[in-house]
Amino acid sequence: MSFIEVKPDSDFSIHNIPFGVISTAENPTRRVATRIGDYAVDLSALAQAGLINVPGLDAAKVFAQPSLNLYMSLGKAVWTPTRLAIQKLLSSSSALRDNAALVAQAVLPIAKVQTHLAAEIGDYTDFYASKEHATNVGIMFRGKENALMPNWTHLPVGYHGRASSVVNSGTQLHRPKGQRVVVKGEDPQYGPSLRMDCELEMAFLVGTGNALGSSIDVNKAKDHMFGVVLMNDWSARDIQAWEYVPLGPFLGKNFGTTISSWVVTMDALEPFLVQGPHQEPKPLPYLAESSPSAYDIKLEVQLKPAEGNEFSVISRSNLKYMYWSFAQQLAHHTVNGCNMRTGDLCGSGTISGPTEDSYGSLLELTWSGAKELELAGGIKRKFLQDNDEMILAGWCEKDGVRVGFGQCHGKILPAL
Amino acid sequence: MSFIEVKPDSDFSIHNIPFGVISTAENPTRRVATRIGDYAVDLSALAQAGLINVPGLDAAKVFAQPSLNLYMSLGKAVWTPTRLAIQKLLSSSSALRDNAALVAQAVLPIAKVQTHLAAEIGDYTDFYASKEHATNVGIMFRGKENALMPNWTHLPVGYHGRASSVVNSGTQLHRPKGQRVVVKGEDPQYGPSLRMDCELEMAFLVGTGNALGSSIDVNKAKDHMFGVVLMNDWSARDIQAWEYVPLGPFLGKNFGTTISSWVVTMDALEPFLVQGPHQEPKPLPYLAESSPSAYDIKLEVQLKPAEGNEFSVISRSNLKYMYWSFAQQLAHHTVNGCNMRTGDLCGSGTISGPTEDSYGSLLELTWSGAKELELAGGIKRKFLQDNDEMILAGWCEKDGVRVGFGQCHGKILPAL
Repeated sequence: MSFIEVKPDSDFSIHNIPFGVISTAENPTRRVATRIGDYAVDLSALAQAGLINVPGLDAAKVFAQPSLNLYMSLGKAVWTPTRLAIQKLLSSSSALRDNAALVAQAVLPIAKVQTHLAAEIGDYTDFYASKEHATNVGIMFRGKENALMPNWTHLPVGYHGRASSVVNSGTQLHRPKGQRVVVKGEDPQYGPSLRMDCELEMAFLVGTGNALGSSIDVNKAKDHMFGVVLMNDWSARDIQAWEYVPLGPFLGKNFGTTISSWVVTMDALEPFLVQGPHQEPKPLPYLAESSPSAYDIKLEVQLKPAEGNEFSVISRSNLKYMYWSFAQQLAHHTVNGCNMRTGDLCGSGTISGPTEDSYGSLLELTWSGAKELELAGGIKRKFLQDNDEMILAGWCEKDGVRVGFGQCHGKILPAL
Repeated sequence: MSFIEVKPDSDFSIHNIPFGVISTAENPTRRVATRIGDYAVDLSALAQAGLINVPGLDAAKVFAQPSLNLYMSLGKAVWTPTRLAIQKLLSSSSALRDNAALVAQAVLPIAKVQTHLAAEIGDYTDFYASKEHATNVGIMFRGKENALMPNWTHLPVGYHGRASSVVNSGTQLHRPKGQRVVVKGEDPQYGPSLRMDCELEMAFLVGTGNALGSSIDVNKAKDHMFGVVLMNDWSARDIQAWEYVPLGPFLGKNFGTTISSWVVTMDALEPFLVQGPHQEPKPLPYLAESSPSAYDIKLEVQLKPAEGNEFSVISRSNLKYMYWSFAQQLAHHTVNGCNMRTGDLCGSGTISGPTEDSYGSLLELTWSGAKELELAGGIKRKFLQDNDEMILAGWCEKDGVRVGFGQCHGKILPAL
């Protein structure tokens, strides 16, 4: 228990201790914070006061950075004791509770806090690790016979995304313009995307990387990961469909990708490890894992249409449906010697479940616009309209313990 | 003319003034330099001596950086006068020639200099802008009927590459391992690539970018580019062929990409602008250019087999063959609001010419291994063997003026 009030349904219990970057009106300098209940806790202030003492961590310097990168680069031997030290500081038995001045300085109501993109992202890679999603999209883009490519069950298919346009939750994005075929068989036209979509994803941030030429062992991959965020991989389906053959998605994706503000650590997620889907054929040895590596994380997609007053839940999914684990993704990514660096972001790909109400994109939920979603107030949608808002949510629950990700929020503004 | 000796066939005449990053045994701090003839000129030393005075440029600070990024971020209004000021400093009438102490400090024989990767690359994008290359590869990967996709003549097809593994000329790379199908129709096996290839490319570095949501006008695109380098986009064809459908190249490419050390500025290339290939169909208005934007840059690919003693020229091409110009690539990349940042790298894709001896990859030169290349000493190659070395070279020549790129050198070491 914490001396700070935490509502029972909060994503940010004392079992979580996520990391993020904040600023406030009083102190606009970006710095590292954790979150508990409805409060951000300024770790830079606690470190300055000499309260965070962990071997290998120069807390006053590391938590005064404008991103998590320096902290993430320190590795698991620092992350684990630091999280435990912070947990202890925020517990009901902590001496901090009686230091009213420091509490007033460091424990900040979340409404008074501005969050920022937590990491400087060097490279961003997106995988395609949900079998249900790959199958659904494959059917729509290439027909039932060519839905799942022969390689799909042998390796985690992935592609490079754009790091510059990864933005923090809350950022508003303009509808992208570009070439798309409006009338089948005719030449493409230039204009705003007519098929704006979202993708429900999660992503891990690389904490410690590997040298060019070396590889990360699948059974040690987890130790290289710092933590996990929710990710909305906004997609302009018409631009994507026209451009993506043969070299993959490009302008249909790189106008913006939103991640949640608070990075939930692998340590906090450890209790929620479960066995992932059965893999057939058996993965090659470099992808073979010796222990369960899927995470039971409940996921939700919510949509508020421009003309509506409330969010409607349009999908309920779970990260555990993902066929290829994060560890397999990281091992595969480096098997050829590709070097990972602190702050690299690896997305799961859309996380669709087996049932129609668990699909992670509008493309799948409306079957490429063949049917409509019915939202609160009788409002209908096939794809996103201008000023529509989306929220992704995710949380774990087990034995009365809740660890969650908060919200990944975004709004689509009209094309410029 | 310069007071420093420049051989007539040097790429680095006084008309060039490229930018790079160097260190020396005496001073291991990375700093900005230019090159002339067989000398690197330490711009940080000249700036420290108060010799580089350009409005908007804090030369002592900017040229003491370990990368070109700060300089590149200053924009064309600074780049152009700075290059002219350096040109003047190095000219035969310059007072610098008589300052023996400063010349000894700043004008360094190239053999005593270590070059480094010139830029911190945020995002790296690779295009696919040679019609000959796209057609050749398309025939081999997908058959004659599906060689050139319907989108190809409407837009510059591109995909995101890996920034972390872009390396400076001279870096040795290990042969990548991964999944590839060894016997057609059978399951993939894990092992070192059996079809290691190179790709002759050029790439531009973004100097000044654009805000997320905005676009760069095709007719102003050149002003956003800082300069151009040679690029070898090493490719493991067997890994690529197995993995690339439907999301594009990934591990077949991201184990390493080599760029030349000296960035040749757009100003230095301006005299070599020529009209590019006729574009049919007519590009959409956002891709329509009002003046010639192709560059007449002669290109050469050289290969030294491990068991040989010399390099053989295996291809002669030219950047002017590229169907989509750099300006069109940058305009297309940002048409959807994607933001470019200082230091982003955009590759042309393999530059193949119309004739068989102008193809830019072994894949095309040996027609996927169907025939062998004959090198000096009667040595033969289909793909690269361990310890083979490659050099890409490029230069412009007109009215007795030569501006070149030096060499982009690499060696393939055995798999680890």
